[in-house]
Amino acid sequence: MTRALGRLRSVRGMNGASVETNDLAEPYLLGWLASVGLDVEYVRGEGNTLYYRDSEGREIPVVDYAGGYGSLMLGHNHPEINAHAKSLLDGGIPVHAQFSRHPYANEVAQALNAILRRELGDDAEEYSAIFANTGAEAVEAAVKHAELDRRMRMDEAYAAASAQVSAAQAAGAGVGAAVVEALGLPAGAGIEVVADEITRRNDAVRQRTPLFLSLEGGFHGKLVGSVQLTHNEGYRAPFAALAAQARFVPRDRPEVLKEVVEAERAELLGLAVEDGTAVLVRHAAPVFCAFVLEPIQGEGGIRVIGREFAEEIQRVCAAVDCPVIVDEVQSGMGRSGSFFASSRVGLRGDYYALAKSLGGGIAKASVMLVRRSRYRREFELVHSSTFAKDAFSCHIALKVLELMEADGGRVYRLAAERGQALKDVFETLRTDFPDVVEDVRGEGLMLGLEFRDQTQSASQALRENAGTFGYLVAGYLLREHRVRTFPTASAVHTLRFEPSVYLTDEEIAQLETGLRDVCAILRAQDGERLLLPA
Amino acid sequence: MTRALGRLRSVRGMNGASVETNDLAEPYLLGWLASVGLDVEYVRGEGNTLYYRDSEGREIPVVDYAGGYGSLMLGHNHPEINAHAKSLLDGGIPVHAQFSRHPYANEVAQALNAILRRELGDDAEEYSAIFANTGAEAVEAAVKHAELDRRMRMDEAYAAASAQVSAAQAAGAGVGAAVVEALGLPAGAGIEVVADEITRRNDAVRQRTPLFLSLEGGFHGKLVGSVQLTHNEGYRAPFAALAAQARFVPRDRPEVLKEVVEAERAELLGLAVEDGTAVLVRHAAPVFCAFVLEPIQGEGGIRVIGREFAEEIQRVCAAVDCPVIVDEVQSGMGRSGSFFASSRVGLRGDYYALAKSLGGGIAKASVMLVRRSRYRREFELVHSSTFAKDAFSCHIALKVLELMEADGGRVYRLAAERGQALKDVFETLRTDFPDVVEDVRGEGLMLGLEFRDQTQSASQALRENAGTFGYLVAGYLLREHRVRTFPTASAVHTLRFEPSVYLTDEEIAQLETGLRDVCAILRAQDGERLLLPA
Repeated sequence: MTRALGRLRSVRGMNGASVETNDLAEPYLLGWLASVGLDVEYVRGEGNTLYYRDSEGREIPVVDYAGGYGSLMLGHNHPEINAHAKSLLDGGIPVHAQFSRHPYANEVAQALNAILRRELGDDAEEYSAIFANTGAEAVEAAVKHAELDRRMRMDEAYAAASAQVSAAQAAGAGVGAAVVEALGLPAGAGIEVVADEITRRNDAVRQRTPLFLSLEGGFHGKLVGSVQLTHNEGYRAPFAALAAQARFVPRDRPEVLKEVVEAERAELLGLAVEDGTAVLVRHAAPVFCAFVLEPIQGEGGIRVIGREFAEEIQRVCAAVDCPVIVDEVQSGMGRSGSFFASSRVGLRGDYYALAKSLGGGIAKASVMLVRRSRYRREFELVHSSTFAKDAFSCHIALKVLELMEADGGRVYRLAAERGQALKDVFETLRTDFPDVVEDVRGEGLMLGLEFRDQTQSASQALRENAGTFGYLVAGYLLREHRVRTFPTASAVHTLRFEPSVYLTDEEIAQLETGLRDVCAILRAQDGERLLLPA
Repeated sequence: MTRALGRLRSVRGMNGASVETNDLAEPYLLGWLASVGLDVEYVRGEGNTLYYRDSEGREIPVVDYAGGYGSLMLGHNHPEINAHAKSLLDGGIPVHAQFSRHPYANEVAQALNAILRRELGDDAEEYSAIFANTGAEAVEAAVKHAELDRRMRMDEAYAAASAQVSAAQAAGAGVGAAVVEALGLPAGAGIEVVADEITRRNDAVRQRTPLFLSLEGGFHGKLVGSVQLTHNEGYRAPFAALAAQARFVPRDRPEVLKEVVEAERAELLGLAVEDGTAVLVRHAAPVFCAFVLEPIQGEGGIRVIGREFAEEIQRVCAAVDCPVIVDEVQSGMGRSGSFFASSRVGLRGDYYALAKSLGGGIAKASVMLVRRSRYRREFELVHSSTFAKDAFSCHIALKVLELMEADGGRVYRLAAERGQALKDVFETLRTDFPDVVEDVRGEGLMLGLEFRDQTQSASQALRENAGTFGYLVAGYLLREHRVRTFPTASAVHTLRFEPSVYLTDEEIAQLETGLRDVCAILRAQDGERLLLPA
């Protein structure tokens, strides 16, 4: 516990916080933001720009590469989205009309299905949609659906196995030595003893806690259930007693995945009667609830899942009938250059979670898609949310999808092209500062720039603040270059860049200037310069 | 599992559903709504009125007593809230500015604190605020905070007990027979054996699963964690393997609460050394994570917690240092005639959850308040949400609070007065139709009208549809009287009424006409008339 929190402090970089403010809404966080110069109040947003006011009340523009942690594919206050929002308000849209017909929700689902078919191929199965309000809620809905489905499959498999055993008992079947030995029973055990032992074993398998598989470095939200799928120990460990656990497997190491699945798989036993003698039948038991992963990890440091690993995940999961939940909350909505980042590596989910830019930078909207062949209509009886599937956020989502699909998907092309322009800058920086820049990663407008670890820096200021490194750099870039970015929360030496598709060459140039300045400071190991002046 | 779903079907009343639609967003639900005539598409909302279009395209008004399940204290599309929303959009509000200064969030927290002090007395402690997006998310945040706090208290208590044991060991203390006997050790056991046994016992207590207490009939949301605090078995049981469990205690039976607490409490053992001899010291172990309850149960049938029971809860929880989470998601925001329904019975929470009307019928906003003396600043490191604490929903929340507090709290007075007018109608109905109306419950504008159970009705139509009774009535009232209401989800013979404070006498009269019609049908046991004509 203490260790987990200690680790988190260093991960999120708040160990330097000592200022307690009088704020009632997260006073400690605010004090910490102040200590690195990030406690700015933004008063307006437009496109890629956020504005704060200086001491004389003038608006100071800041280029926003944080982009609402991925929510602003179309920028702050997109004029068409805002105009649409206002026309919805003027028209008296019935935001709260639960338990009635919501054709706009169906339209969102239809639009997403059309995109899925285009990206996965025309044979793609239809997906049903369950609406929620946030990315974490969409993940939780997927998890709940997967568990409902798993338990129903488990009950069916258990009932089928039990029926076989009962039939063998009713037939008064004999029992061969092989069965007795396989079950570890005393020689000469009869059908009743065999049936009892099988039932005992099957009960134990049925009562196993559902198992989730997830990736090291993965982030899937911070609600009670979803935080247990999030790898960062600081976020997860304090709440481990509240929810079912996941086994985390490393990226791009299919052999470890196979080992984990092999170690955790289980079977239900049944019997067949052949020539009056009972023989064991082994059925795979659905103990895996889901494999949950991001095609491009966000918080974990902007790391792209490779095609081969994606294929292996698909293969391994199919073999044990473990559904794949593709968390596209940060990577989806066109950010990667495709609508679904997973489609770029041929990964086909049984479930998808979408949020962030689905709300157009204004609304709070999320959706969970589930393959029709996995869909359990019982889920509609057990899950709902007062705020979800509302007319306002559905109509905003429709407008967002319309803007994205316009001109043959110009937004996706822009994401790819603008992303490449940004990446080229990062690659040049890496070439020019190989001693400072460790790596450049990502796809489209979801990019990470990793700096070399500063734990052993010659600069005392850098050594002492190595755990907050990315935030120091963020404070410096904001202060000196009016550029807003943050490190990825679980990999603090990596800065993340998730601007909108309307990113201009000038905005890129402004970032480049700032980053070159930072690289020069780091090359000189002049760490003091990154600190907030006293 | 199957039983739980079966029960749910009858609870939520969908056992008659057979129509599968082509909708991709909850096709089964839509089919079921169609079967009872509730599959209306609303196109506009204003005040207490929702409009749908008839076959000739004319707008047909419906009086909305469902009120967004409690989200519309100020009605649909309140002109001042809408105007404010539009001015925020026009001003280019920076909706997504995570990890910066959010003074408006602090203002919401300050405003809520001022209200709390007024309702609880001037000595009320300050509460810190953690923002979320939905009621369920606010509950999950409270649960996570309570667990973080519990584990930190547990770690502290465990460390203190361990230190005592180590000190006794270091002192080479003798061991009296009483200690040996109390620990069930063999006679003559020395300090090392005693220390080992105490450590074993303390480890077991520390590793216990956190326990939640909750009320029968309670509803706290449907996310992975919160659904386990929701009593309805249909919603909860299919997902029992996903999260920590609650023990449900009946309303207004303090003796059962005491029994449960007595049965579940635990202690950590320490040692004191007196005259060179070790004696046992017993410390209460924080095994209770929280008592979660609604002051007026919504889904459970509109049931008000009594003052005596509230006092008993407070007393019992204080005795075992179990924090009280008051879920005011549906009952709060002035609906009861006070801002916090709990303040009417003197219940003071360690936590409060607010949502629904906080968003003014447009935004998705929720907040969790936690008493400063319980607040753990570490929570700010481990919890966050991309969509939460945003400028748009905070500013809307401020406008809502401003409207509620205006004119010395006219909104609360209206809620009490309009609620009483509505309740008077229900009481008259009960007097006039004692054979039909079972009970009238609630406070302010959170009212329930319970009909007599129809399971043994003389009418075949009513008997067969007893499990969907409230929905049949809702379909009839909508069709014949243009009145919208629903049963409470977990008590289907109770209709819920949660209109806005702008409810007019004419709207009440329209409802009364409809309900008198329904009562007459039920008196005549003419159940066929409630069914949707073929």
